[in-house]
Amino acid sequence: MERSSSYMTNAFVNYGRTELDSMERYFKKNFVSSLPGYKGVNLIGTINHLARPNLAIFNTVFHVGSNPPLLGMLCRSPLVSSHTLNNIRETGFYTINHIKSQFFTRAHQTAADYEKDISEFEVVGLNHVYTDQLPAPYVKESPVQIGMKLKEEITLRSNGTVLLIGEVIEVILPVKSILSDGLIDLGITETITCSGRDTYYTTNKIARLSMPSPDKDLDIIG
Amino acid sequence: MERSSSYMTNAFVNYGRTELDSMERYFKKNFVSSLPGYKGVNLIGTINHLARPNLAIFNTVFHVGSNPPLLGMLCRSPLVSSHTLNNIRETGFYTINHIKSQFFTRAHQTAADYEKDISEFEVVGLNHVYTDQLPAPYVKESPVQIGMKLKEEITLRSNGTVLLIGEVIEVILPVKSILSDGLIDLGITETITCSGRDTYYTTNKIARLSMPSPDKDLDIIG
Repeated sequence: MERSSSYMTNAFVNYGRTELDSMERYFKKNFVSSLPGYKGVNLIGTINHLARPNLAIFNTVFHVGSNPPLLGMLCRSPLVSSHTLNNIRETGFYTINHIKSQFFTRAHQTAADYEKDISEFEVVGLNHVYTDQLPAPYVKESPVQIGMKLKEEITLRSNGTVLLIGEVIEVILPVKSILSDGLIDLGITETITCSGRDTYYTTNKIARLSMPSPDKDLDIIG
Repeated sequence: MERSSSYMTNAFVNYGRTELDSMERYFKKNFVSSLPGYKGVNLIGTINHLARPNLAIFNTVFHVGSNPPLLGMLCRSPLVSSHTLNNIRETGFYTINHIKSQFFTRAHQTAADYEKDISEFEVVGLNHVYTDQLPAPYVKESPVQIGMKLKEEITLRSNGTVLLIGEVIEVILPVKSILSDGLIDLGITETITCSGRDTYYTTNKIARLSMPSPDKDLDIIG
């Protein structure tokens, strides 16, 4: 019995197309959204043409290139993101703001389906601040605040979701979080990560590894 | 003095376009690649037309949609990804494999610039396994193995990098990692995360939160 139960505990399941297609809708949403592993999770700040601020949580921001500095963002769920997407189209600008555990519930709450004229900043209790570089609000409580200018919009044929490519035009972050070679220490910024659509995590560094080469062993460099 | 030093410790710096543009190339690569926050990190398995297996680490896999189940992947660095990209174009298939701390150095080493005919599986010491669903190798050691069929290829105008959209056609994972509502518990799979280009982390769950609604307080549901 011991042996059989231990076997079951370590058992793998194999889902093919038939099993995937027959998953209940909500189950499938949770399952597929977990597949990429952990995700960056950020608050996106925008204003509309009347300068009303809007804030929404996104877990689909990714690095596109460094020179020029580009980040991508997928506007996947129309319910959550339509105000954000409309505002970015109207103004051409947005901000990306890291999330700390101190305000992760307030960040999560921005995904509620508020009316268009409601400012999520006000409702959830986060502060908006501006610089003279762009017409979009930063989250004052955020440890890493990134100002973005829209460069490219692509509608994916596969499912109609919208991919935005933006250029980084401003970054505000703690001096001490920038390592000597440019890497930002996300332990110092206390940035959190997420999985699926609703689960949040802090991290523990395992190691920073040297640049791999075919002829050399890896070193731990941090 | 105490006061001033404490002030400096918490000081924020503001980088505008001028500062970003004048960053040294390697510094800038590290800096910009840290901006999205934590990233999913996965091993991508492919074969070429001679069925030679290839394995490469990518930190640019993201969720595109659940119905149909779609994941995106950016092929950012030609050096690292060209064999992978060529193989996906040739065969139309690839695998995405989560990484555990037990083999993260071997995973990182796959980014070394090996000759085309070298199998990274063999060089770094990971095992490839196949199913009858697709012509692409899974990483046997990986806790979550995802079989993908290429659906769409987009070249970004902004910097020429290639975005692949693929459909999930098979998933192999531990039975016990699938929660009752479909979410995959990445603590049970022991999936790790990364930041920048070379720093790896385990995680600690803060909380899973209920679906936000304008009229309801959030609950911790896991």
